Amino acid sequence: MKYIKDYKEGDRVFDIYLCKHMQSAVTKNGKPYINVILQDKTGTIDAKVWEPNNAGIEDFDTLDYIEVYGEVNNFQGALQVNVKRIRVCREGEYDPADYLPVSKKNNDEMYKELLGIIGTIKNPYIKQLLNAFFAEDEAFIKKFRKSSAAKTMHHGFVGGLLEHTLSVTKLCDYLCGCYPLLKRDLLLAAAMCHDIGKVKEISLFPENDYTDDGQLLGHIIMGCEMIGEKVAKIPGFPPVLASELKHCILAHHGEYEYGSPKKPALFEAVALNMADNTDAKMQMMTEIFDNVTDSNWLGFNRVFESNLRSTRME
Amino acid sequence: MKYIKDYKEGDRVFDIYLCKHMQSAVTKNGKPYINVILQDKTGTIDAKVWEPNNAGIEDFDTLDYIEVYGEVNNFQGALQVNVKRIRVCREGEYDPADYLPVSKKNNDEMYKELLGIIGTIKNPYIKQLLNAFFAEDEAFIKKFRKSSAAKTMHHGFVGGLLEHTLSVTKLCDYLCGCYPLLKRDLLLAAAMCHDIGKVKEISLFPENDYTDDGQLLGHIIMGCEMIGEKVAKIPGFPPVLASELKHCILAHHGEYEYGSPKKPALFEAVALNMADNTDAKMQMMTEIFDNVTDSNWLGFNRVFESNLRSTRME
Amino acid sequence: MKYIKDYKEGDRVFDIYLCKHMQSAVTKNGKPYINVILQDKTGTIDAKVWEPNNAGIEDFDTLDYIEVYGEVNNFQGALQVNVKRIRVCREGEYDPADYLPVSKKNNDEMYKELLGIIGTIKNPYIKQLLNAFFAEDEAFIKKFRKSSAAKTMHHGFVGGLLEHTLSVTKLCDYLCGCYPLLKRDLLLAAAMCHDIGKVKEISLFPENDYTDDGQLLGHIIMGCEMIGEKVAKIPGFPPVLASELKHCILAHHGEYEYGSPKKPALFEAVALNMADNTDAKMQMMTEIFDNVTDSNWLGFNRVFESNLRSTRME
Amino acid sequence: MKYIKDYKEGDRVFDIYLCKHMQSAVTKNGKPYINVILQDKTGTIDAKVWEPNNAGIEDFDTLDYIEVYGEVNNFQGALQVNVKRIRVCREGEYDPADYLPVSKKNNDEMYKELLGIIGTIKNPYIKQLLNAFFAEDEAFIKKFRKSSAAKTMHHGFVGGLLEHTLSVTKLCDYLCGCYPLLKRDLLLAAAMCHDIGKVKEISLFPENDYTDDGQLLGHIIMGCEMIGEKVAKIPGFPPVLASELKHCILAHHGEYEYGSPKKPALFEAVALNMADNTDAKMQMMTEIFDNVTDSNWLGFNRVFESNLRSTRME
Amino acid sequence: MKYIKDYKEGDRVFDIYLCKHMQSAVTKNGKPYINVILQDKTGTIDAKVWEPNNAGIEDFDTLDYIEVYGEVNNFQGALQVNVKRIRVCREGEYDPADYLPVSKKNNDEMYKELLGIIGTIKNPYIKQLLNAFFAEDEAFIKKFRKSSAAKTMHHGFVGGLLEHTLSVTKLCDYLCGCYPLLKRDLLLAAAMCHDIGKVKEISLFPENDYTDDGQLLGHIIMGCEMIGEKVAKIPGFPPVLASELKHCILAHHGEYEYGSPKKPALFEAVALNMADNTDAKMQMMTEIFDNVTDSNWLGFNRVFESNLRSTRME
Amino acid sequence: MKYIKDYKEGDRVFDIYLCKHMQSAVTKNGKPYINVILQDKTGTIDAKVWEPNNAGIEDFDTLDYIEVYGEVNNFQGALQVNVKRIRVCREGEYDPADYLPVSKKNNDEMYKELLGIIGTIKNPYIKQLLNAFFAEDEAFIKKFRKSSAAKTMHHGFVGGLLEHTLSVTKLCDYLCGCYPLLKRDLLLAAAMCHDIGKVKEISLFPENDYTDDGQLLGHIIMGCEMIGEKVAKIPGFPPVLASELKHCILAHHGEYEYGSPKKPALFEAVALNMADNTDAKMQMMTEIFDNVTDSNWLGFNRVFESNLRSTRME
Repeated sequence: MKYIKDYKEGDRVFDIYLCKHMQSAVTKNGKPYINVILQDKTGTIDAKVWEPNNAGIEDFDTLDYIEVYGEVNNFQGALQVNVKRIRVCREGEYDPADYLPVSKKNNDEMYKELLGIIGTIKNPYIKQLLNAFFAEDEAFIKKFRKSSAAKTMHHGFVGGLLEHTLSVTKLCDYLCGCYPLLKRDLLLAAAMCHDIGKVKEISLFPENDYTDDGQLLGHIIMGCEMIGEKVAKIPGFPPVLASELKHCILAHHGEYEYGSPKKPALFEAVALNMADNTDAKMQMMTEIFDNVTDSNWLGFNRVFESNLRSTRME
Repeated sequence: MKYIKDYKEGDRVFDIYLCKHMQSAVTKNGKPYINVILQDKTGTIDAKVWEPNNAGIEDFDTLDYIEVYGEVNNFQGALQVNVKRIRVCREGEYDPADYLPVSKKNNDEMYKELLGIIGTIKNPYIKQLLNAFFAEDEAFIKKFRKSSAAKTMHHGFVGGLLEHTLSVTKLCDYLCGCYPLLKRDLLLAAAMCHDIGKVKEISLFPENDYTDDGQLLGHIIMGCEMIGEKVAKIPGFPPVLASELKHCILAHHGEYEYGSPKKPALFEAVALNMADNTDAKMQMMTEIFDNVTDSNWLGFNRVFESNLRSTRME
Repeated sequence: MKYIKDYKEGDRVFDIYLCKHMQSAVTKNGKPYINVILQDKTGTIDAKVWEPNNAGIEDFDTLDYIEVYGEVNNFQGALQVNVKRIRVCREGEYDPADYLPVSKKNNDEMYKELLGIIGTIKNPYIKQLLNAFFAEDEAFIKKFRKSSAAKTMHHGFVGGLLEHTLSVTKLCDYLCGCYPLLKRDLLLAAAMCHDIGKVKEISLFPENDYTDDGQLLGHIIMGCEMIGEKVAKIPGFPPVLASELKHCILAHHGEYEYGSPKKPALFEAVALNMADNTDAKMQMMTEIFDNVTDSNWLGFNRVFESNLRSTRME
Repeated sequence: MKYIKDYKEGDRVFDIYLCKHMQSAVTKNGKPYINVILQDKTGTIDAKVWEPNNAGIEDFDTLDYIEVYGEVNNFQGALQVNVKRIRVCREGEYDPADYLPVSKKNNDEMYKELLGIIGTIKNPYIKQLLNAFFAEDEAFIKKFRKSSAAKTMHHGFVGGLLEHTLSVTKLCDYLCGCYPLLKRDLLLAAAMCHDIGKVKEISLFPENDYTDDGQLLGHIIMGCEMIGEKVAKIPGFPPVLASELKHCILAHHGEYEYGSPKKPALFEAVALNMADNTDAKMQMMTEIFDNVTDSNWLGFNRVFESNLRSTRME
Repeated sequence: MKYIKDYKEGDRVFDIYLCKHMQSAVTKNGKPYINVILQDKTGTIDAKVWEPNNAGIEDFDTLDYIEVYGEVNNFQGALQVNVKRIRVCREGEYDPADYLPVSKKNNDEMYKELLGIIGTIKNPYIKQLLNAFFAEDEAFIKKFRKSSAAKTMHHGFVGGLLEHTLSVTKLCDYLCGCYPLLKRDLLLAAAMCHDIGKVKEISLFPENDYTDDGQLLGHIIMGCEMIGEKVAKIPGFPPVLASELKHCILAHHGEYEYGSPKKPALFEAVALNMADNTDAKMQMMTEIFDNVTDSNWLGFNRVFESNLRSTRME
Repeated sequence: MKYIKDYKEGDRVFDIYLCKHMQSAVTKNGKPYINVILQDKTGTIDAKVWEPNNAGIEDFDTLDYIEVYGEVNNFQGALQVNVKRIRVCREGEYDPADYLPVSKKNNDEMYKELLGIIGTIKNPYIKQLLNAFFAEDEAFIKKFRKSSAAKTMHHGFVGGLLEHTLSVTKLCDYLCGCYPLLKRDLLLAAAMCHDIGKVKEISLFPENDYTDDGQLLGHIIMGCEMIGEKVAKIPGFPPVLASELKHCILAHHGEYEYGSPKKPALFEAVALNMADNTDAKMQMMTEIFDNVTDSNWLGFNRVFESNLRSTRME
């Protein structure tokens, strides 16, 4: 397969791509045409169908996988595909993993590592709860492993939720080694569950957008509800422990203005907030600088409220 | 019964009061004594037991109802009871209503009015849900009718939660008459349920303080959970409707910094926020000016961020 | 008359419209043409005069009422009028009400309702003052009834100021019924006068823009001045009452950052602030959802600081 | 007269002082006594009347001038007057200037300097307006020359308003020399009038407290009204000029949160805001360091949001 | 030389200009061309090189001084130069002063005035320090006299840093006359040095952009370092005086959010902050209104957070 | 030695303590006495010298080590020492470590661990710089190892600066393992140096208070200067690297309002800010809960802006 990032002017294209977006339009002269954005895991490219009524152009829609035949042109300095033929593909003809941004880390290994940490939990109720989510609830596990951690911002790729969860959990484990007053079982459970509501807040790829419930309720509240439902099925689960765990979830954004209805009131809630914030910021920086090869100033970044540049050490 | 607000210097006291607070202490000369705060529904007064080891002083504790024999003195301009004898009373010897701040409005009538409004709801699922809380759940109803709406701030008296709920509901009904795009069934349901979590957030009188779950989770989240639990028992309850109702509860404080994890995103959520805020402010003002008989400036008020005075119209 | 909202591609146009805006321009090839925006009460549409030097094109200007002859085309998916002839009309040839956004409510009825409420005021000085504005000052009444309540935001149509004033006044009257400590005469007077300065702040339609004094002084200060002038002509008007009324006007935005030089310090000032804010928000919501027929998310709204959608109840 | 700042332990006191405050009280043993604060222009001192029922103690009240006979004691390290006799004095027995904080600058000279600057104004309308206030309105002039510029903060002494006004006016004149686009006549008029509303906002000494109108309306609005009233009496006063002058008054605090209902929109309004703020801060600093003789850190200052110390230059 | 502000449609151009910016591009039809922005001290103008491969078009780059031969056209209402020939010029062929925005005040005179003020300083250490910068350090003096005081905002022209420094110093001198507790030597030294770090923060014209160190460290910190380095070379310089001077530099922005790591804690630091802010605001206003000939409202200005207009006085 | 935390009512005291504070006073009856606060590493206790003129009471002062003979009383529920004899001790009679709060961790081991990490640095210039501070500058090392990291807040004990520095450095090292784009040499150097300015900002124990330079300049700026001075002595130290390191120091508080003159602009600066903040919060929590044995709510904490309680897990 020819990846989009490798296109050059004059190339002939004949491959399957994800149609990220399509929209019919009319030229100044009143001629209909179609604007298309093609996507694979290496990026996106604009494409135009100038003869939408040609026999070679099948009916297609946004988020279809389409086989495209065409030519790469240069329009005002940017590459563009002039599409001559389009065929809609069926499942099986393509591997979705080729078309979506995906975590660089191995999904199976990350998942296994998470299960390994659950194995070290001593409190039987917490262990039971974590297994109920991460080892037994197949529907949840499937979504959890595929979800991104965000629509934009950071970890916005397949497996991103798992990668972020694991990273926060391990940082919390490190903190438990440094600050012995932290209750490891509670903190690690809170770390693993802190973003589980995102499987309901953000739809799966290729859509990866806020759901209706995501907009109305948000992942913090839905995650808290999900814990309430699982806890109700574990006989004898200590009620104060359940409230403490929910509190950590509710408070993990740390500030009211970031959507937490409670400020952290327990040591573990503070620790989770620090770990979540640290991994988020570190990952954002990683994504910003990942493809930067020079050390020019990148311009003002709204999240970090600063102009940024990569480090030179010269 | 002689009410505290009617005490005068030199009065002899011999009646039952609520012991709001007691604490043992030692004089500069090393003599033990007891500080007491006595309460009835008209106010509180300081009292001292200078001879705690006398035979007439029974063992008593904070929140006991105690029969007090003593004398009213003036100490540095404030009245104080010099207590000679104390006897702890049993339930039945006193009427708690005499000792607690109580809504001026009739509890039965307010409750009946609320049920009457439920009768006008047309959506069968919403009606079923409201009945499940306000007509069928005896344990909930008992607490809901006795709760205050706040520890301090406004409606901080027995029946306050019911009074506030009814007032907000009626204001919402008024708004439905003015702005026809509002969905009355949803808005009135949200109004009735917006503070139900307070029955778990604040303990009943005479304690009337934040519970552990109140601190960790808050009434917004617990109210949302309570709705989720009742909805789960109503077959066919439309899921989007449930989310919309929960959203109104979550967003009713209007701002993140007031503990709402979501800003209002539906017309009804905005209306509920306006009505709740209006009744809260109007009631606070009513409580501030209720016993003010002159029109002097009262000094800076931190909630209203202003010096306040009652209106003169001269 | 053919309304703009009913235009379809290919229609022939021959009717009078308000010229909301006109600007001469030059094509890439150096040919002069004229960009025009036509308006009637149902909306606006772009128009082009490609041959501005033709005999059929009279000299015209922004805010003229013009008779237009032309054809409706589709340009890049949007409708556009290709104008062949233009004639400037004189007063009398058209009814301005057809060309401006107008309150859906009957202006005469609203005005009568307002006068009716003045009839219920008991304080003779306040009654005299309100009559001086709303019953006797013809120049004021004419402007007050035609003004919008805002350039954008809410009630931005002919009669909007009257509609908003009446709505706030009635909500205040409702509150007086709920909270007996409110002084009805003062609160209703403040409600009726709270935005009278807008007749000087915003010019009448079709311009409907900030005046020079509006920019320099604002409606809050000018409204306060207007009250001062009328009060000076009422013998014996109690000076404290005058200051209390002015205070309600000054404080009605509730917060310094919204342009109020004083925070509400009287119960009535707080009530007015609540009622004004409630009607403003409710009306904004009404205008947002008025023409929305689906329940898709509308995108982030800067006033409500939230994504919004209409309620589904499914 | 013996000034309070010169009192020493053991001194006998027999002189007239202002009674800044008096309040009856009762000792722990139930004996009545009176707490008094005596004031002269050099400071204040606590005093006690231990035998209030003695024949030598006349009835007196807060803000009376009283002849005091007594003895200076040291109580817990602070001086205190033990008062034996009190006689209430009549006007004429004392010179109020001895009892009030007074500007160090000569009131007549400052006033003359202000009139001199009015003499340099060229615009006839502005000159007429300034004369109407500062040369012709005797009642205004009397208050203006005696007022303080604030209850606390800065220039809180007799003549403080005149001193502040003159200082701001001269700084504005300096700025006119530096930035030629400034309109000197408008800016100087605005500077002279910017705080005239304070003669209504703060009562005269010895009370020097906010008036009712001061609380309800504030000096910014009342100053603007006062200008409006004088302008109305000057035939042909240009209306835009009047609005521009009022705008400068309204905007002189520079920020909404400081009570300005408008942000500066004219060059002169910005200049006035800068000059007012600069003189206020410089005078506060002068008052803070005026009696400081060492260069220790003075502790956190809430206005300057910093710990402060006087400069050492070593 | 023909200045850009005097260009008219149809003019023939044949003169030397600064090439502010150049970028190669391709037309829709794939033809290469070059976008150019030409600059002289009166403004900038767009230019196009439609035949970049012509013999008459020498290789040139951004910030070259180029001799341009071409014609002034009108494109969509804006003037544009159609360039036929370009020749790159050598130093000496042009006077850079013709191409850069330059202070209207005479650089030599301003510099002399600054030296004159240094002559009035009495403290020998401060005098030595100021001479070390402004009289002896040739490299520094050269940059200091040519620098702008900002990239945008105010004083953004050759000589702007000197003009701003002198203006602040003189305003501080004026304040010393009004508030005698100010230490003149310290305040004037702080005024002269407050922005010296800008010679390292912003590169010289024609680039006039933030340097790498400017971004990483900022002029406040670098200015403080520069003082530390010079002080280290003056034997016996009092260490507290050095810290007080550095403090004034660190605190001169007045607020943490404007990049000052310390709030003003000394009287002189407060005075410098006031003077710097006043000159900045006054100069911004001067630059805004300098070329405005009418008194229309200019639209919302983000620095002054207000719509602005020039004063009419009518 | 008898530690203060072990005192009981009725104990006889005869040991050496640090006099944290002393102040002469006078009883209501005019009798002189002395208030004293005694301190050892386990806490502080109030003491009174009722007969300051007795022969057994030597002249002593704040921060003297004094041998105290007296008796432990209970005054209003709190213990208090009634002091009969005081003798001022000479160095050598006592071990200061017994009187000051001290890190629980071994100072030598922490220091050795820090040197060990320096040994792993690969960049020769950074290694040289770190050795210049932590291995070679004896005066610096002595202070650095004894300093606290704060006057209050967290790590406010002997060795606190070393403990905090080591903890932040190790957390940064952990982050380098997780996020490979981080430059380990730069980040670890920044971590080790981020608070070195505190050796100048806060005086050593027992005083442990802000110095004059600490108030005027602060540890961020002084730390940056200290780096500049050492760098100047290392031939060939890359200038950009020096600026990047200084930037990390300047930006490590993360926000302007916390005194950082720059927001983090490099990945390492962001990481340092996260690590510093995390260790600070975790240590504050550790100090809050260290001596808490129950799980009651502790009341509102101003740093965490929340009521806090220790975790129960029941």
